[in-house]
Formats: sequence, structure tokens, C-alpha cells
Amino acid sequence: MVMADSSATPTAFTWPSRLPHALSTEALASVDAWWRASNYLSVGQIYLLDNPLLREPLTREHIKPRLLGHWGTTPGLNFLYAHLNRVIREREISTLYITGPGHGGPGMVANAYLDGTYSEIYSGIDQTVDGVKGLFRQFSFPGGIPSHASPETPGSIHEGGELGYALSHAYGAAFDNPDLLVAAVIGDGEAETGPLATSWHSNKFVNPLEDGVVLPILHLNGYKIANPTILARIPESELLELMRGYGHNPHIVSGGFDGEDPLAVHQRMAQTMDEVLNEIAAIKRAALAGDTSRPRWPMIILKTPKGWTCPPVIDGVQVEDSWRSHQVPLVNARDTQSHTDVLESWLRSYRPEELFDEAGAPAANITALAPHGDLRMSANPVANGGLLRRELKLPNFRDYAVDVPSPGATIDEATKVLGIWLADVIRDNPDNFRIFGPDETASNRLAPSVYAATDKQWNAEYVPEDTNLARAGRVMEMLSEHQCQGWLEGYLLTGRHGLFNCYEAFIHIIDSMFNQHAKWLKVTREIPWRRSISSLNYLLSSHVWRQDHNGFSHQDPGFIDHVVNKSADVVRVYLPFDANTLLSIYDHCLRSVDYVNVVVAGKQPAPNWLTMDQAVAHCERGLGIFEWAGTETPGTEPDVVLAAAGEVPTLEVLAAAKILREAMPDLSVRVVNVVDLMRLQSEDDHPHGLSDREFDAYFTANKPIVFAYHGYPWLIHRLTYKRHGHSNLHARGYKENGTTTTPFDMVMLNDLDRYHLVMDVIDRVPGLGARAGLLRQQMQDARLRARQYTRDHGEDIPEVTDWVWAGNDAAAAAARTLDTTGGDNV
Amino acid sequence: MVMADSSATPTAFTWPSRLPHALSTEALASVDAWWRASNYLSVGQIYLLDNPLLREPLTREHIKPRLLGHWGTTPGLNFLYAHLNRVIREREISTLYITGPGHGGPGMVANAYLDGTYSEIYSGIDQTVDGVKGLFRQFSFPGGIPSHASPETPGSIHEGGELGYALSHAYGAAFDNPDLLVAAVIGDGEAETGPLATSWHSNKFVNPLEDGVVLPILHLNGYKIANPTILARIPESELLELMRGYGHNPHIVSGGFDGEDPLAVHQRMAQTMDEVLNEIAAIKRAALAGDTSRPRWPMIILKTPKGWTCPPVIDGVQVEDSWRSHQVPLVNARDTQSHTDVLESWLRSYRPEELFDEAGAPAANITALAPHGDLRMSANPVANGGLLRRELKLPNFRDYAVDVPSPGATIDEATKVLGIWLADVIRDNPDNFRIFGPDETASNRLAPSVYAATDKQWNAEYVPEDTNLARAGRVMEMLSEHQCQGWLEGYLLTGRHGLFNCYEAFIHIIDSMFNQHAKWLKVTREIPWRRSISSLNYLLSSHVWRQDHNGFSHQDPGFIDHVVNKSADVVRVYLPFDANTLLSIYDHCLRSVDYVNVVVAGKQPAPNWLTMDQAVAHCERGLGIFEWAGTETPGTEPDVVLAAAGEVPTLEVLAAAKILREAMPDLSVRVVNVVDLMRLQSEDDHPHGLSDREFDAYFTANKPIVFAYHGYPWLIHRLTYKRHGHSNLHARGYKENGTTTTPFDMVMLNDLDRYHLVMDVIDRVPGLGARAGLLRQQMQDARLRARQYTRDHGEDIPEVTDWVWAGNDAAAAAARTLDTTGGDNV
Repeated sequence: MVMADSSATPTAFTWPSRLPHALSTEALASVDAWWRASNYLSVGQIYLLDNPLLREPLTREHIKPRLLGHWGTTPGLNFLYAHLNRVIREREISTLYITGPGHGGPGMVANAYLDGTYSEIYSGIDQTVDGVKGLFRQFSFPGGIPSHASPETPGSIHEGGELGYALSHAYGAAFDNPDLLVAAVIGDGEAETGPLATSWHSNKFVNPLEDGVVLPILHLNGYKIANPTILARIPESELLELMRGYGHNPHIVSGGFDGEDPLAVHQRMAQTMDEVLNEIAAIKRAALAGDTSRPRWPMIILKTPKGWTCPPVIDGVQVEDSWRSHQVPLVNARDTQSHTDVLESWLRSYRPEELFDEAGAPAANITALAPHGDLRMSANPVANGGLLRRELKLPNFRDYAVDVPSPGATIDEATKVLGIWLADVIRDNPDNFRIFGPDETASNRLAPSVYAATDKQWNAEYVPEDTNLARAGRVMEMLSEHQCQGWLEGYLLTGRHGLFNCYEAFIHIIDSMFNQHAKWLKVTREIPWRRSISSLNYLLSSHVWRQDHNGFSHQDPGFIDHVVNKSADVVRVYLPFDANTLLSIYDHCLRSVDYVNVVVAGKQPAPNWLTMDQAVAHCERGLGIFEWAGTETPGTEPDVVLAAAGEVPTLEVLAAAKILREAMPDLSVRVVNVVDLMRLQSEDDHPHGLSDREFDAYFTANKPIVFAYHGYPWLIHRLTYKRHGHSNLHARGYKENGTTTTPFDMVMLNDLDRYHLVMDVIDRVPGLGARAGLLRQQMQDARLRARQYTRDHGEDIPEVTDWVWAGNDAAAAAARTLDTTGGDNV
Repeated sequence: MVMADSSATPTAFTWPSRLPHALSTEALASVDAWWRASNYLSVGQIYLLDNPLLREPLTREHIKPRLLGHWGTTPGLNFLYAHLNRVIREREISTLYITGPGHGGPGMVANAYLDGTYSEIYSGIDQTVDGVKGLFRQFSFPGGIPSHASPETPGSIHEGGELGYALSHAYGAAFDNPDLLVAAVIGDGEAETGPLATSWHSNKFVNPLEDGVVLPILHLNGYKIANPTILARIPESELLELMRGYGHNPHIVSGGFDGEDPLAVHQRMAQTMDEVLNEIAAIKRAALAGDTSRPRWPMIILKTPKGWTCPPVIDGVQVEDSWRSHQVPLVNARDTQSHTDVLESWLRSYRPEELFDEAGAPAANITALAPHGDLRMSANPVANGGLLRRELKLPNFRDYAVDVPSPGATIDEATKVLGIWLADVIRDNPDNFRIFGPDETASNRLAPSVYAATDKQWNAEYVPEDTNLARAGRVMEMLSEHQCQGWLEGYLLTGRHGLFNCYEAFIHIIDSMFNQHAKWLKVTREIPWRRSISSLNYLLSSHVWRQDHNGFSHQDPGFIDHVVNKSADVVRVYLPFDANTLLSIYDHCLRSVDYVNVVVAGKQPAPNWLTMDQAVAHCERGLGIFEWAGTETPGTEPDVVLAAAGEVPTLEVLAAAKILREAMPDLSVRVVNVVDLMRLQSEDDHPHGLSDREFDAYFTANKPIVFAYHGYPWLIHRLTYKRHGHSNLHARGYKENGTTTTPFDMVMLNDLDRYHLVMDVIDRVPGLGARAGLLRQQMQDARLRARQYTRDHGEDIPEVTDWVWAGNDAAAAAARTLDTTGGDNV
């Protein structure tokens, strides 16, 4: 079923066309003055502590003791900002500026200062001489601002500390923003990264009618830190083929080499900008008229010298148009008089006396270039997505509960149940919620329900047999975890909602992207003008214990370990163990803001343990005692605690508890389940952390704890090492033993199985006597029997697959339908 | 200086050209029979437990209870294997076969079985009916072999469990193997990943004379798990532009659709294969004749139906040429008679009676297609690199020692010193050692020495100003951590040596690739015929504490946490803290096999602490007591242990020890340094682990331990939670606090600074009295003073930068040259 057909909601904004024309003398002067001013302010930030407008001769005292920052990319970013200003004023197109070379931070700050946004946000940095001085001093200075286009920089959603995600972020911002232009600068260094190289293909997904427009600008300045770039060293014809092969219509603007007058380059850039925006307007018009074919979107290749306008040669070696201008061209500007002199001439080459008035404010022909209000790129509310964020309309997840007449009496695929709810989330939020996945949404069993509500957005070619594809849809699938993560980040940072469903093992592909997003969130919490954005929600399925088809290469539960290294203020980890707990947890996640929520859930048929009321109470506490599963006497401490976190550990712990209950009814066993993993940490270390008193109340201070955990067992120790009972805690989990085998063989390989857990209890509770020794032997035998059966028959032994918690027949029948083949786990 | 000029070593092998010609009837029958046999054996592996050659009617008892594996990609892989066999026989080209769609494991196994390699290695799987039965049964079966082209599969260096690295591995294998052809199959799903999308650009690096040839074969079967692929849904003209834009000369072979006779497709494939190999031969001849320009290497686009030759329609829905053939097309083959029947017809469609003789061995016209001996792709020793591996010639690292008259008396940049040694490693091993880095080799200060010995290999365009670039060179730099990792893996897996130098934070980009390589190594240890390969060595610099230019986004020491989750048998982590320890550690790493060695080292000027003799002894132990730094009385236990691991923590611990020595000379302080982090683990958990007795001898069983660690502090707890003294251990490290600031401000932000360490000692040693309280206040004051100075001056306070351990003037003068700007840390 197609919900959001591309013929549905025509855009209100009309993308204008204008006849390309040469810039008037006045317009040319204005663009050039902006560019010189932003270059001047960029150089000033890197070098100057004082004498900001050079109203006296430059001396070493005016220069910062530590020269930090990146010049090389900056003049190109400034050049584009000036030209975008011109067309935004003329066409009134809401524009977001994303700079892949995010370490060109001085440029981003300079432009935000020139268009007035900076002073509006940071009252200490006003448009006076003192304001300029403050602007310069704070840059890369202790207590000041970072050197990149960081969260502190107005207009930025993209730090670019790590390269490769400019286009993914740009498309993420453009989805469901039909009137938005995203000008995305891609550095030719960044263009060599894998994530960037595939992100060009985003144009097969964007919908010309319902989504905004991404204008990629490949900035070919030719050099990286210490090397030429690949794309600058292939024939131009090959580069054009590459861009056409990616589906774009490339336009080249080249200039500034060998001392070419920038005014000529301005004219060429202006003309190209007009042509490109006219092409976009034509595409938008055609889409409005019903053309659903994939357009050949324009893109720009801007070839300028790296470090353009800095001294061409310093100490006899080439700097401009060389990798040597990447960072700080004059490292000894403070300590070598000749370098101080070079710096002064460089700064004066921008003619600051023309650029700032007596008070230090930018000259009138500069401010005249800035668009008005929110059309200023640095002030665009899209770049502060919380301003635009609307709460999701969430259907009551309790209405989607599965029936659980008694623990384990029914069987469901948890993610499939979640999919039914998510389908209604999609129906109720047709324009600000999307699901992202690397070709795994069906495999993770959110299908078929989700595809009854929407389709996968696909703007490449179709064949008649295609199913669940449409020009516009709420599910985004490309076989690139980088793209899923980058798109979702861009979507969230611009004020929308979403989730990323992925195989657990391969979410590591975006470890480093997660780092950057978590850092961004941590910093934004401390920036008052940055408004809260929706949390980044992961749904990790096809988890470590159920990789029946793929085996060892697909087994890695370590993303949780990776995540918990980041600031406790922003990370949350949940391990729902059945359908109702998954519903409850995910409702919570989709309501939350400013977090990264990691949810690991099963997709295979598995017993339901809690009614919805029980699940809600359990998830609100984050952990709880399953009184129905243990044998403790109320009011007394148990002999042993059997704890579980995760779907498969919960099953095995309950099975172990049943064995103990039947074989040793006098042993007082407490069964604890942890669904919010951060509850284990100390309250000093995480906002969700239990107090020591609470922890002891659940786990006791001195009784043995056998803890069955979904992932690497040592994480449980790392989270609990400060607890009183820690020395009594024994954790089981995935010990990096795996292959293509049956589900129960997998838990046995890692000593997480029910039989081994019983042995662990016996080994740790003192004074159990001969009966325990006999039970231990029975457990050993059961393991050997199960192992041999698997080897002989290629499937798990019936005493495991037919196992049920309660004795009722319905549950037993349901258990026999358990999918032991792994189904569509691919 | 250019060491390995492209005019140096002409290749011995002559790449032959042959006139393209249609296959003879006999040759055609042979190729087709091979293909049918490998398809039959692939289907058999997925489905059959018994009745392997269908010599009786198929019943449910012959079918596996759990149907696991991937059919969709397999017939294409088999098709290519058959055709490659034909040309290898005719041209005698040593060929390595890399299959990006590595989950086409049944195909890889089937072909290795047909060419005889499998039975030679696995004596239980002979070429009899019973052998075929065993071959089928073991596949994806408990106790058998995994479903992918795993390490157990002869001829494979590439599991492909995680997609994206086929071409990177292929080029890594080709470097320095001038006579080798690497046929690299890229799935069109894999082609959507970022790493694959940029790896096409590897052709700008490969040298036509000194390196082998990679023949990329893009297998366009049109579908992923549940979606069409992008590259199959763009116009063919666009795809050709994309491939030309990547610098290739694409050849399309398309066929098998709508029931086309495979024999016609064989003919087209054979002709294209001949054309392509002739192009390659011409390129090789031109290179021999002195042509150094970058050739336009050929590549093949093979368009065939996904799941080609399986039942076109099952239960009324399309399966062949659809995503539905991705995995197991007939999931109910055992339980539904009609599906059993379909399976039987499918199997019989390959005419097994023609393919195997009475005994069950492959027919003569099939075995006749197999090349001889090591020319069989499954038997190529390149795919078992340890067979070919030669030991590195390592210059004596002691000869490169820096002078350390007393601890801290001299200053060096550790990585720069290492670079001097590495330059000679390069000189002594001109054809089997390479350094890989994402444009950071100079920034990490292996330059300039390394570039005196070699150049960066670069086969794109040149400009006159280029430095340190050559058509052939030992340093490989592309701004893609994925490419560096993938190239290096391919290089090591085929028997050579190398290292990957990278910024510490961004090594997380390859977290998931590391996982796959570590898993590969773990499995190969248990496979007798797999010979040892060189360890994968990381050199991580520009580390968390010295990101002066970039700040928070570049600060992440968590790769170590990620690595230690993998099997202790294969991972090693070293934290050398000065030039001599780095030399000693790296010599050890380059000699080792079958490990992943993570080495984190400083690149900024820093004090040298140990003479080379001391360094060697310290590194051999992996940890040690710095008697010269502590104040303990020999033979008695100290009052407190101050421990450090890492460059910056070592400096701060020594500074703290000095403060304590001077202020509280009666306090007995032991200073311990850990250079081999795995020594901290229990001997039960890691081969390097200390026994508890040894651990207690270093750290005491009950005295306070203040541990200053390079990375996230909780890792120290995770490694030591089983130790007696653990509850007395207090770890400091990076707590995810950072920004663009000074080096000392960074350690203060994370409470790792000397002053705070002194406070930590005071807070933990009981009974120190009033004097300690006074010292504590002094430390608080010193922190405030340092903080304020940094805010006022933008650099660190002189009492920190001028600090020296010993009192000598030379050291004091050297300290003042410490680079506090971060230099070329970009």
C-alpha cells in the first residue's frame, strides 16, 4: 500500500528562475567585499589576540602564542557563502549550508558574524572593534570556542571533525523539507572516504516533490594534509564522467590560479549559481507537473587554489595552492619578525580599512549582501532543529500488547509486534518520522506491517515485479550503514524523528559516526540556544545469539560496550526481552530527546513473559525481581541471585530457575531481570544508576549473583565494580565463541545455557551437599546429550526446543513452533 | 629520494595475449559441465543430508532439518569460476579469486571440491559418493563448516561476512605481486557500501610494472536481501559513465534472463574474458616498455539473474531474478511434499548423472577444466599467505636508541625516532613491507625519515611541485581508513608485512573491519593447513591527549576497549611512553605473527625516560617498577602505588611522584609503569596476564593504587576486577571531557593531572596528618593557577611546561622546547 504518494502534497513554495546575468559592478563589489571580510576575519581568528582591525602596526604581542586552526579550506567556504548569500537574497530560498571540511571553522564563524547572527546569539561578540577582538581571541583558545564548525557555531549541523558525512547529512536534512535548499560542500579530501563516495547515490532516494534539494559542491582545492587529492589528479573528462555516473549534471567553476583576479572568478561563479538554481527550479516545476522520473540534479565542481589568497610562497616554498596551506601557514608568526611582517601584509591584502567602519562594524555594502532574518544561512532554524521539532503523535502502545495469560504461555516475534505499532506511528506522522535500515527492515521483521502503512522510498528505476517501493515512502533502505546513520542524523538534527534498524554486529560500522553524534549531543546540552532534538534510536536485531545463517562473522554484541564509553548524559541502553517490554521501551525512546538509545531485541519467535501492565512497571523501574520465577521467602534474603539482561539470557535464566526449583526446592533463588542496563551503574556515574542501597536490595550485598548477560560478560563487571556485592558476581555472556550452528549450541558454546547456569549456582552456593553434586552431574550430562543430538541431527534437542515455563498445553504447542532455522536471518 | 623506481625490476612472467575465439563445442561443454556441477554441489550443500547424487528418488529424510545458506549469488560465482578456469589453463596466469559476496560459500566450497583441492586438504571429503555426502552434510551443520567463504575454505582470503572490502583486499593482495591476477567479484549489494564505493579508486595507486592486476567483476544480479540494487536500476549508460569515471574500461556481459540458453551466455563471457585479458597483457607490455602513465584497466559488468537456474516461480511468486532467491528459496523443502518435488526437479535440472561417474567423482570433462597444481584458484598459495611469507630483515633497533643520560634528561618525538628505524626497515625489505596511512604519515611524524628511504606510491597525475610521490613506493596514503585497513589486510593475508598508522580517534572507523580480521585470525589458529601470517600492526598517534588543533571530535581512546573484546589469543595492546620503549615494542610487533598489535604512541616532543637497555627489559616484562622514581624502602611494601600506562599518564605520574617525594619524603611511594596492557588481566583470561602472585608483587594486595591510564579509566577496572587489590584501585583517565585547549588543561579537565593524582594519593592513604592537608590545598591552588594562566595567556603555565624530572640544565632547556602548539597535528 502506498500511503504518501508523490502526487499527494504539492509544495507551497515556488522555486524561482531568473535569467543568468553578469553581476553589476555594485553587486560584484558587494560579493567581493563579503569574501574579503570573511577571509580577513578567518585569518584574524587563527592569529590575532589584539589589534584586530590592524589600526596599528602588527607586533608579536598581537599574535596568539599557540596558532591553531585550518586555513586551507576556509577561503573556498567563504567564497561560496558570499555567492549563496547573493542568490538567497534574490530568490528567497531557505538554505542550509553544510561544510564537509568542517575544520574550516573560522570561516563558518566569520560568516555568521558578518550576517549578524553571531552577535545576536553571543552578546559579548558585538559588531565593534572590541567585538572583533573577542571574536578573534576566543577561537581555539582555552575557555573559548573549538576550531571546527562545532555545535557552538550558528548555522551548523555538521562539525566535520570526522570526514565523510556531508552529503548524507545534507540529504537527511532535505527529506520532508520540500522548500529547503541544502548547499553541501564536499572537500576533495573527504571525497576519498568510503561513506562520502557512496553518499552521492542518495540522489536515487530523494523525491523531487516531497523532499528538499541537495546541491553538492565538490570543492577541488587539490590537496589534503600532506598529499594531492585523487579527484584533482584525474583528467577533467574522467571527473565529469564520474559525476554523471553518479547521476548528476556537473558544472565546473575554476579560477584563482596563478594570481587570477578574483573578480573574474566571482562572475563565473555567479553565472553558474544562477544556471544551477534555474535547473533546480525546472526540476521542481516538472515534478509539480507530475513528472515522477529521477531528475539529473545539478552539482558544482569548484576548483580553486588551496589556501587561496594566503602568501603564495613563504621561506621559498609554495604555500598557496599546496598542501602546506592546510593548517596554519605561518607557524612562527609570533617569533620571527619576517613572518610577522608576512602576516601583516597578508591581513592588509584584504584591505580591512574598506571592510569595517570606524566603530568596527562591517561596511554597508557587506551587510547589504546578507539575506533577511531566518533566510540568513547562519540563522536558518533548520540548523537548530529543536526549534522546528513537533512531538510525535504516538498511538497508545498498550493497545498493541500481546496476550500473556501466564509467563511464557504465548510466543511472538518481538520486532514483528513492534512493527504493528510502528506502522501506526507512520500513519499518524506522515511527514516527520522515518525508518532507516541497510536492507534489513524486512529481515528484522518490521515488515509486513510497516509496508501496509508505507513503502520504501525509491527514485531509481522500477520493474513491474517491484513490491513495497514508491517514489515517496517512510522507509529508507540502502545497503550502507553509513548512509542510514548519516541520513538519520541529518533528519534528527533538523527537527524530525526516526529510528535505525540494523543487525547488531554490523552497527559497529558506524561506531565512529556514533561517537561524533554523541559528542555533538553532549556539547549541545551546554549551549542554551541549541534546542532539544529527538533522540537517535537504534533497533538492533538479528543479534549475536541468533545468527544461525551466518555464524561467527555476524556475532558481535560489543556496540553496547562502545556506546557506554560516551558521556552518561547522552547514552541509554535497553534490553527488552519480549514483545510487551519492547513496545514499552520503544514508546519511551521515541518520546525522548537528546539521547542515543540503543535497543537490542529479538526477532525470532520467543516466549512472552510479562503482561503489558507488568512490562510497563518493569520498564519504568528498569529492572525487577520476577517473584513468580524464584523460590525466595518474602522478607528474607535469598541464597543466590540469578540475574538476566537480554532476550536469550532471560530465557536461559528462567529455564535454569525452573530446574533449580524442581530439583532443589529448598534453595532460595531470586530471579532478577535488568532491562535498562544503565541501572547497574552507580548513581554517581549515570543518571539511571541505582543507589548502592537499591542495588543491594535487588542483588544482595553478599550472596552469589550469577548474571547471564546478552553481550560480553566483562561489561557487567565494568558497570558494577563499585558495588558491595561485586566480588560475588559471576557474569556469563558471549565469549567470542561462535560458528554456524543451532541456537542452543550457541549458548552452550559460551556457557550461557541453562545447564551451565545451574552448575554456576551450585559451584557458588556453599553447603548444598550431595544432592547438588548429583544435579551438577545431570547438568553435565544434559549438555553432552544436547551437543551430541545437535551433531547427529543438525537441530536442537527436543528437551530444549519444547521447553516451556508453565505446564500448560497451549504453551507447549506454541513452543514447538519456535523457528529454529533462523528464518530470514540473512 | 626515490628508492623503488618503476624502471627497476621488470617482471619475469609474460602476460600472454590470445586471439579471441568462440569456444569449441568441447570447451563449451566442459565449461558448462563445470558450472552445472558446481551449481549442483552448491544446492546439495544447502539442502541435502543424504542421497547426494540423487541415485534414488528424493524424500524428506534426505533433506536437512535446518536449511541455511545463501543461494542467490552462488550461480554467478560458479559461472565466473568456470570461465576463469578456462583462461587460467590457457594462459597459465596465477589467479586469486576474491568473492565480495562471501556468503556464497557453497559455491566456493563446490569449486574447491571440483578442482580437487578440497579433498587434498580434507581427507574425509574424497571424490566418492560418500565424499559428496560428507561435503553436503558438513555445510552449515553443527560441527561442520560455516556458511560463508570462511577461513576453512581453501582459496579464500576474504570471508565477506561483512560487505565492502572485496576490492581493497584484492589490491592489497596485488601490491608487490607483479605476476598475479586478482579476480575480484563485487556484488551489487556490496557496491552500495561506502568502503566499496571508494575502493574503485585503488586503481590510482596500483603500479602496472611492480604490482599485480586486479580485475574487478561487478556482478549485477539486481537484488539484495529484500530490495533491488542501485546500480542495477540506473540506465546502463550511467553505469558505464560511473565505471569510466572511476578510471576503468568496462565490458558488459549480460545474459540468462527470461530463460536464455546458458550456452550463449558462456560464449559471450568467454569472448569478453579473452578481450579483457588481452587488454591487461597490453598494459603490462606497455609498462615493461617504459610507459608510466596510469592505464585504463578493464573491468567486467556481469548481469545475470539472481539465483540463476533455480525454479523461476515457486508458489506463484517469482524467485529466480528476484530478491526472493537471496537465501534459501524452498524453506519448506522438508515439510511440504510439493516443495520436495520442486527441489528434486531443480537438482535434476543440472543432470547430475552426466556430472559424476559411478564412484561419485566428477566427470572427466569437468576435471579437465581445472588448471594444474598451484594454478588452481583454490590451491593458489597466495591465498594461504603464510606459505609464502618471508621473515622481515629488521635492523637492530638498539642502534636507533636515543641517549638518556638520566630519566627525562632528553626530549624526543617518539614516532619520529621510530621513523628513522622504519626507513631502514623499508630499505632492507624493498618488496614485502609497506606502510599504510590515511594522509597522516607525515602528521604522525614518520616523515621525514621514511621519505628519505621511499616515496608514496601514486599513479594518478603529477604536477612539478609534487614531493615524495612516485609511481612505486612503500607508503600508501589515501584518505580512507577503510582502504588502509583493507589494503593492509590483503597484503598480510598474502604473506607480507606492514603497519597502519592512524589518528587514534578515527581508527574507530575500521572497528568492524578489525572485528572481521580478528575473527579470521582466531579461526585460522585452529586450521592446521593455514600457515601463520604477519600480525596486523597499528601505530596510533595524534592521540586523545594531544588534539590541540581539533579538540573534542578528535578525542577518543576507545579503540583499545573495542579490541580487548576479541579473543585474547589474537589481540595485544602496547602503550610505549617514550622513544626507546616505542622502538623496542615495534620491533617485537613486526616480528610477531597471527596477532593484532595495537600500539599507541606520542608524536609530540616529550621526555625520554629509559635507556635502551632499561627499555628492552621493561618491555620484555611488559611492566615494571621505576625504583628511581619512587620512595619505597626495598624489602617492604609501599604505602601507595602510583601506576601509569601511556605517554601522558607516565609524565603526570612522574611529576606527581616528584611532588610527593619533595613534600612528603616519608611517604613510601611505588611507581609502576605498564607498557603491555594485557599484563593486567588474569593469566586465565590472556596469555600475557600476570599470575595473581605476580600482580600482588607489583601492585600489593591491599595498598591504595592510583592508576593513571591513557584511555577510558573503567577499562583498568574491567581488566583487573578479579585481582586481590582491586577494591583499592582508583583509575584516572579520559572521561570524555575535552575541547580545543592546551595539553595541560586537557589532563586537568579529566583529573589526570599531577596535582590531582597527588590529591588522589592523599585522599586514599590513611593517617597522613595535617601536612597532607596542606599539600592537598597547594594542589588545589596549583590547579586553579594553571587553569587561570591558560585562560589568560592561551598557553600552559611555565611551571608545567618547564617541569623536568631531574635538576639538570640540559633537561630544563630541552623542556622549554616542548611543542605546545600541537605542531602539524591536523
